[in-house]
Amino acid sequence: MSEPVREAKGASLARWLPLAGWLAHYDRHSLGRDLLAAVIVSVMLVPQALAYALLAGLPAQVGLYASMLPLVLYALFGTSSTLAVGPVAIISLMTASAIAGMSGTDGAALSTPEMLAAALLLAFLSGAMLIAMGLLRLGVLVNFISHPVISGFMTASGILIIASQLGPITGLSLSGGNLIAMGESLSSGAQELHWPTLAIGLGCLTWLILARRHLKHGLMALRMSESAAGMLCKTTPIIAVIVSSLLAWGLSGPLEQGQLVQGEQLEQGKSGMALVGAVPGGLPDLSLPSLVSHDWSGLLISALLISVVGFVESLALAQTLAAQRRQRIDPDKELIALGVSNMGAGVSGGMPISGGLSRSVVNFDAGAATPLAGAFTAIGILLASLWLTDWLAWLPRATLAAIIIVATTSLIDIAAIKRTFRYSKGDGAALMITLAITLAQGVESGIIVGIAVSLGLYLKRTSQPHSALVGRVPGSEHFRNVERHEVETDPELAILRIDESLYFANARYLEDTVLALMAERPSLKHLVLACQAVNLIDASALESLEVINERLSAAGVKLHLSEVKGPVMDRLKCSELPANLGGDIYLSTFDAWQALSIHGSHCGQSCARDGISQTAAVG
Amino acid sequence: MSEPVREAKGASLARWLPLAGWLAHYDRHSLGRDLLAAVIVSVMLVPQALAYALLAGLPAQVGLYASMLPLVLYALFGTSSTLAVGPVAIISLMTASAIAGMSGTDGAALSTPEMLAAALLLAFLSGAMLIAMGLLRLGVLVNFISHPVISGFMTASGILIIASQLGPITGLSLSGGNLIAMGESLSSGAQELHWPTLAIGLGCLTWLILARRHLKHGLMALRMSESAAGMLCKTTPIIAVIVSSLLAWGLSGPLEQGQLVQGEQLEQGKSGMALVGAVPGGLPDLSLPSLVSHDWSGLLISALLISVVGFVESLALAQTLAAQRRQRIDPDKELIALGVSNMGAGVSGGMPISGGLSRSVVNFDAGAATPLAGAFTAIGILLASLWLTDWLAWLPRATLAAIIIVATTSLIDIAAIKRTFRYSKGDGAALMITLAITLAQGVESGIIVGIAVSLGLYLKRTSQPHSALVGRVPGSEHFRNVERHEVETDPELAILRIDESLYFANARYLEDTVLALMAERPSLKHLVLACQAVNLIDASALESLEVINERLSAAGVKLHLSEVKGPVMDRLKCSELPANLGGDIYLSTFDAWQALSIHGSHCGQSCARDGISQTAAVG
Repeated sequence: MSEPVREAKGASLARWLPLAGWLAHYDRHSLGRDLLAAVIVSVMLVPQALAYALLAGLPAQVGLYASMLPLVLYALFGTSSTLAVGPVAIISLMTASAIAGMSGTDGAALSTPEMLAAALLLAFLSGAMLIAMGLLRLGVLVNFISHPVISGFMTASGILIIASQLGPITGLSLSGGNLIAMGESLSSGAQELHWPTLAIGLGCLTWLILARRHLKHGLMALRMSESAAGMLCKTTPIIAVIVSSLLAWGLSGPLEQGQLVQGEQLEQGKSGMALVGAVPGGLPDLSLPSLVSHDWSGLLISALLISVVGFVESLALAQTLAAQRRQRIDPDKELIALGVSNMGAGVSGGMPISGGLSRSVVNFDAGAATPLAGAFTAIGILLASLWLTDWLAWLPRATLAAIIIVATTSLIDIAAIKRTFRYSKGDGAALMITLAITLAQGVESGIIVGIAVSLGLYLKRTSQPHSALVGRVPGSEHFRNVERHEVETDPELAILRIDESLYFANARYLEDTVLALMAERPSLKHLVLACQAVNLIDASALESLEVINERLSAAGVKLHLSEVKGPVMDRLKCSELPANLGGDIYLSTFDAWQALSIHGSHCGQSCARDGISQTAAVG
Repeated sequence: MSEPVREAKGASLARWLPLAGWLAHYDRHSLGRDLLAAVIVSVMLVPQALAYALLAGLPAQVGLYASMLPLVLYALFGTSSTLAVGPVAIISLMTASAIAGMSGTDGAALSTPEMLAAALLLAFLSGAMLIAMGLLRLGVLVNFISHPVISGFMTASGILIIASQLGPITGLSLSGGNLIAMGESLSSGAQELHWPTLAIGLGCLTWLILARRHLKHGLMALRMSESAAGMLCKTTPIIAVIVSSLLAWGLSGPLEQGQLVQGEQLEQGKSGMALVGAVPGGLPDLSLPSLVSHDWSGLLISALLISVVGFVESLALAQTLAAQRRQRIDPDKELIALGVSNMGAGVSGGMPISGGLSRSVVNFDAGAATPLAGAFTAIGILLASLWLTDWLAWLPRATLAAIIIVATTSLIDIAAIKRTFRYSKGDGAALMITLAITLAQGVESGIIVGIAVSLGLYLKRTSQPHSALVGRVPGSEHFRNVERHEVETDPELAILRIDESLYFANARYLEDTVLALMAERPSLKHLVLACQAVNLIDASALESLEVINERLSAAGVKLHLSEVKGPVMDRLKCSELPANLGGDIYLSTFDAWQALSIHGSHCGQSCARDGISQTAAVG
């Protein structure tokens, strides 16, 4: 008798801590797969973490900190066995934009510690919002961002990210959250290309692109197995990191080398090349972000947008990967897992995080079996930040920019834009507006306008509903559009098929349509609204139907309804419409036709004459 | 040949200046009707105009100024022959709320000239927005405010207006744009009822209520004709005005009377009773509102809300009145007419205006034949402000409060609230949320939240679309819900009828529904989506269908579509879905049944055996 109880307890624990569900079955085989995946992902994540922290305008170590505790927390709470969380490009860009929108206590731009505090707060708030959404089971809310809007937003963000990296890669000074601001920052003051930076940047870029395209086949030609060649290809960024760091170290003099050893801030080598600079080694401090010293209410909208975008991106990624292994993702649990991870980032010196595309795919390909792979990755990052920080200081920023650019090209999806336009001009317009606003105004305006546009587009589509006058297909019980088919009609009877639910946005349009019809057809005695496509009649539409009924009655025309669906009819019965209706409510349009049309009664008689009962014809 | 040209020119002029359409046919009969209506409306409008200006927190004469030029402009541009525009209760309340939200140059509350300037600017901006909406033909946008939201907003505004008048009628000091602020202002500091004020206020209130209920029948009992008695009843407020002004004058000493004659500001009589005070006589100055000295951008949202609410109110009123005379209102021309009138108010010392309910009904009942009645009313108001201002100074504010209270009770419509709740809990909730937020937070938050709630409600309703597994009604071509009817089914075939358009908000829901169905029915080989109620498939839903198709194919299930509507099919043909679809697209669900079901093929065989061709059975 104790067994079911234990099971139930286990199930309830697993409900909030998915770890409890799979840890019992964990074996040496899974451990091996998770460890291998963790090693590969760690090697890939170190430069990405540094790069995305710089993209967010924060010190490089913040990226490392955001890749420790959050990964462990996701391993505990996440439902995806392969999603690899951490700093990602779009969320870093949004973080930069949110922080840039703030001003310090004296109204000036934020100092670095202030920016850091804001990033922590942003991660913490956005985590709290994700958890709240999860507890309220609001995972479905992401559905309100349409695919074209996401597509336009991703492509525009990719362009913005790549544009923002043109500064570090060329040595030019470039800043701003949108293309216009970047253009202005570039044109202000005389700027000169910094040739050593450009050389390193373009060198890395060329290496990364060539390696991505050809290295795997090259290695396979050297008789390496396909999977080993694939894994090795993922380490190409780390090779760029090592080679360019050595170059930067070689180009600098012993003076700078000595300064760096003493932990001083050194952001430029002797050559004038921008470096990552001194990265504090070791573990981050744990502390709650200070809500008092900051105007945190100003970060609320940004935190909300970061939550939503991060969640949409993670969920889509996790579901795609899960489908390939026939696993299932629970959106509400994912909300909580991402929320806890972000709060973890907020208390451990990190920045807002999300599921990263490239590293999740690598994690998946490397065979990660459980979320423990993420926890092992966190250990890898910890080891790197204990032992490698002295060397990471010499890493040129141009190298990181090249890594970001190559990783970000996958966000830009021109084929999706073309496909959307070919399918529907309206959806294409929503996509292009989102894309244009994101480029011109930045990520926050872009996503807000995008959501508004897709809602507006849908409302516009439904606010002028398609309707058609229908007539009877001769000899059948079917009714078709009089403009498209040869059908029987009756000058005293109009049957209007409404091809949309009736609600406030189109209620008045229906009034106009019916009144125009009445004006055109002075001989009209009966109007039937065929409601087979009407899934809802809201209170506003009910009032419009009452108005239509009154006006038609005043003009001596009876209003009838046909094919009203069950749930709609249940609702109508609670109103006074059925009692006040000038005409009747028919189960089928054919019933209405038989009762009201001259053909209908004629057919009834002729059918009777032909020896077929009228009932059979109706049935 | 010149005739058609002249006609076309006349038509084009009438397009923008409806006056050009009817002025040619104007005759002595119409003139007589318009003059009579103008006299009655003027008598009614003078106290209302003063009252609504005070409600908006502005000097009393602003109400008179807003009843001159705007009325003339509406006569030129309006399409309603009976709509009487001018200061109205809700718009005045919204104006007060907008101005209260501003702060002066030194951060303190606005001075009276600053408030006046803000009101002018508000009228001007809101007029400009209305004209812009009219030129862009956005009259249809008002449909996006649902009836329950309007109903809740009107009732709450009525309650707020009546509550705000409890101050002037009792002599207590009461202020604020919502019930909470009013309650706080009332409880701050020791307050005492002012008995003479209360006596005048309650006296007027009693007179107005009794007169409204019984005077008409009383006069008719005295053998007065019904129409004359009706007209006379509309003058009851002016009787309250005259009697209470005389009382206030009598109660004051010669000193105050002398001060007032010299045009000094005198807002209290000797008795301590609040009076209207010195009203400058004559015409307002014409001048453009100053855009420079003010933070006018802060008024933009308020101006937009005032435009929308004023337009919704006016349009509904004008259409109701027009329907009774079988006339038609053009929403886009009304936008322009109201816009020009509001801009007129903005340049002639007025305040934002709209169509007023009670005075439009009086105008209609008095037989106003053309918009000229409004222009004559403006002349009436002009005469009043030339000759009556010395006397209006003695008018107690309590009298005006009583007039506002009685006029505002018509806004409160408890029956509509009950009706809405009975019909639909969702609509009822939208109404109550709008009502509660308006009462607790004020008019601007109320209308914004109301619009958001009604959109959200609609999206929620459509985001979890009703769908039903259907089976064949034996012996027929009809398919019905398997849970509600006795129908034929097939373990290898599922027919899912989708009762909603497919778009981004419900695309994922469809995925979940189909995947859950697939998990429940391991024997499934064919899934048919019956699309007769699908009026739209947007780009997001298309992607979901592609995902569904892929997942079903992977599991060995074929996806078919049936009864796809013409416009939806045209769209699908532009995508790759038809080519990639695992199954086929059938014209009717019955076709799909015949092709895919074991019953279908069996029936085909048995029908053939029975000597009836299969084609006939399909047709």
